[in-house]
Amino acid sequence: MKYAAILAGGKGIRFWPLSREEEPKQLLKIFGNYSLLQHTFKRIAKIIDKERIFIITNKDYANAIKYQLKEFGCCDGNIIVEVSPKNTAASIGLIAKMIEAKDSEGILSVFPADHFIKEEKKFFRALAAGFSLAQKDHMAIFGIKPLRAESGYGYIQVSRNAVKEKYAFKVNRFIEKPNKALAAKLIKRKDIYWNGGIFIWKASLLLRQIQRFMPALHAVLNETDKKRFEQRWNKLQSISIDYGVVEKCQRNLFVIELACGWTDLGNWSTIDFVLSRDKDNNAVEGDVLTIDTKNTTVWSSHHLTVTLGLRDMVVADTPDALLVCPKERAQEVSQVVNLLREKKRFEYMTPRLVNRPWGRYFVLNETEKYKTKWVEVFEGKRLSLQLHKRRAEHWIVVEGTAKVTIGNAIHYVKSNQSIYVPRGKKHRIENEKKERLVFIEVQTGAYLGEDDIERFHDDYERA
Amino acid sequence: MKYAAILAGGKGIRFWPLSREEEPKQLLKIFGNYSLLQHTFKRIAKIIDKERIFIITNKDYANAIKYQLKEFGCCDGNIIVEVSPKNTAASIGLIAKMIEAKDSEGILSVFPADHFIKEEKKFFRALAAGFSLAQKDHMAIFGIKPLRAESGYGYIQVSRNAVKEKYAFKVNRFIEKPNKALAAKLIKRKDIYWNGGIFIWKASLLLRQIQRFMPALHAVLNETDKKRFEQRWNKLQSISIDYGVVEKCQRNLFVIELACGWTDLGNWSTIDFVLSRDKDNNAVEGDVLTIDTKNTTVWSSHHLTVTLGLRDMVVADTPDALLVCPKERAQEVSQVVNLLREKKRFEYMTPRLVNRPWGRYFVLNETEKYKTKWVEVFEGKRLSLQLHKRRAEHWIVVEGTAKVTIGNAIHYVKSNQSIYVPRGKKHRIENEKKERLVFIEVQTGAYLGEDDIERFHDDYERA
Repeated sequence: MKYAAILAGGKGIRFWPLSREEEPKQLLKIFGNYSLLQHTFKRIAKIIDKERIFIITNKDYANAIKYQLKEFGCCDGNIIVEVSPKNTAASIGLIAKMIEAKDSEGILSVFPADHFIKEEKKFFRALAAGFSLAQKDHMAIFGIKPLRAESGYGYIQVSRNAVKEKYAFKVNRFIEKPNKALAAKLIKRKDIYWNGGIFIWKASLLLRQIQRFMPALHAVLNETDKKRFEQRWNKLQSISIDYGVVEKCQRNLFVIELACGWTDLGNWSTIDFVLSRDKDNNAVEGDVLTIDTKNTTVWSSHHLTVTLGLRDMVVADTPDALLVCPKERAQEVSQVVNLLREKKRFEYMTPRLVNRPWGRYFVLNETEKYKTKWVEVFEGKRLSLQLHKRRAEHWIVVEGTAKVTIGNAIHYVKSNQSIYVPRGKKHRIENEKKERLVFIEVQTGAYLGEDDIERFHDDYERA
Repeated sequence: MKYAAILAGGKGIRFWPLSREEEPKQLLKIFGNYSLLQHTFKRIAKIIDKERIFIITNKDYANAIKYQLKEFGCCDGNIIVEVSPKNTAASIGLIAKMIEAKDSEGILSVFPADHFIKEEKKFFRALAAGFSLAQKDHMAIFGIKPLRAESGYGYIQVSRNAVKEKYAFKVNRFIEKPNKALAAKLIKRKDIYWNGGIFIWKASLLLRQIQRFMPALHAVLNETDKKRFEQRWNKLQSISIDYGVVEKCQRNLFVIELACGWTDLGNWSTIDFVLSRDKDNNAVEGDVLTIDTKNTTVWSSHHLTVTLGLRDMVVADTPDALLVCPKERAQEVSQVVNLLREKKRFEYMTPRLVNRPWGRYFVLNETEKYKTKWVEVFEGKRLSLQLHKRRAEHWIVVEGTAKVTIGNAIHYVKSNQSIYVPRGKKHRIENEKKERLVFIEVQTGAYLGEDDIERFHDDYERA
């Protein structure tokens, strides 16, 4: 049987300020209405049964992923939460172990959550070739013809003379993150590919290779006691599957060429391979006016952005943070985020528009004495039954109808009506209708932190 | 007697998005708590009686100027509102005529509203020399040693051999807006100055020169019938005092060197001569993190801005509009504003934080169905008694106490209390206290434009 693992635990911070630690790039809706993860899930679900698609992530993203994938029929049990992030070798090993336990001949395909594929048919054709190789106890990896001298990628040099099947090559050598000069040389060669981070192999074969090359990991995967497993997992080295296994077992490894408009959405400089471009080769999103601007990426999420005389730049603006840098420095945005984390700036972490299982909200303005929020509650959803010890709340409904519980009383508050929630009173707001509910919340009090909340009942197990 | 005219009618659009047509640069509080106009008024009031300082502007800015200068003791009658903007020759002629009528020996000094002077003592010393020249029926203009090859300025070449008094030179020639190459040549010469746009002369002498070189303007200034005056004024050509008069009467014209840290705040590239600069020569204002960024101006009015790897750039962000351009293109920002005007984008015109005589407000968010505003009412001020035909308003007081009139009833609404203003009801909000009043307003209705307002009584004559 065919299985898939989608790796969705990455922090994807290089898209800051669009991505945040609480909302990494795989969960962002960059293209239309779906997140990168949703796109990936939908794509893979076309060739593999949903019940056999696993998503591996960490505990911070598990809830968001559950809610993003629910509408696509992904069951919660298939979302695997790692004890702690230990890079891809451990993640993939964990899934392989799970699969092997129920299907000793199971074939595992592995996909990053944040790739963009333009031509699905060609993509599926390449995967089919990979599955057929894997069936014969080979390991298939996928290579993309380099588009530029990218120094952040892994490169594969193949042996053109040792073709196994059509489009499947033996590996000559791996070149990890070459410097700019070497990358420029490499991309001129015909036998060079980028490593696409997609793998297909039998779960049992992979586990044998892990046993051989990563015995410590293998031992942990075989640990049956939950507590000891967690302790030992936490002590694992963080190693990628490439370093840990793939690069060491070249004997039965084959590279399949992936010619399907593949893009790794690694940082801002790559996004313009995906967004449509104007006549000056600018990729713009949102309310943007470009004047004599070329080869520039502009993301304007909330207001008008005017660029004048720019070349090869990235301008990414969100309601609470703006980034401006040359494209060639986009790779360094992760260092920006690390710096913000060191400086304890919330902007590295929390997005302005906060997604919750029941809806979403964002802060309109905030001072020490009061805070104004825009809040949307999805159809049929409700917030937890809660109280705040240090703040009162005023709710003005502007769209839909709210069912509001305050103490023991229930009120229906319609659009253009308001209600007051006194400090210390148990309360709940619910949208019973088949339309969205939007209200403006004005908080007043001595302390306005999100952590002043006592939950008594919650549909999302946060109580 | 000494008189002063401050020219404050300019649109100052090159500081967009900080400046807007409704809030030109002279009214912006760029440095600390005072606007450029306020700084200028305060400075001049140190050497000239307030009653003899006139401000000339157009009707759009008259109210704002009144309220900005009231606290400095400028009386409303000294704010002269032109029938229509006709450039500096007409403005200065108008003031000269007013002065001559009451003081035939009056000496008029003229200042732009938007200059920055670092060393006031030196500035006053140069002005004193100018007044003494003017007393002797000369015309004094002021020259600044060029700091860079600025092509947008007027240059003056002086005759070093024809020194009238210490530091006062005869003019050799005027060079208006030289191209970059010529400007670069000019600034290497010792006999070259920038024209600072400051003039001192007897009002009577100036009027004689206007009579000689601009007879049409002179005739209009002598028109006594108000209606005919307005009609003829509207037909005047727009000519600067430099072109129209100064450059033509070189016989009794002298240039005084102004060495006092003068800066013309013409566009974004000049602001960094005034703001303090960091070790990488960046001028930043607001919440800004610069990483490997040099010679760059960053204005971040409302959120975090991160710049990475920038050189010689301008990044100016406001809540509703962002501009990014190289410094050397800053001059072209006026074209950006013109483009926005053509596109009927409100961002060219209205600032996010709107100043009103009674206080200020800004829109927190806005959709077709509802709008949320932050509103501050100054101590002792009140809005007009008004009604809205198409919207209702919810007010949540978050600071201070509001006296609210709705129909015939009066309510006192304290912090953390709210009140509802139904559609079509006469209402008024007032701050009687000696502290500021802040409330959040949520508007709902079919139409939310600012023009849905019927005023019955207004402290500011807008009813």
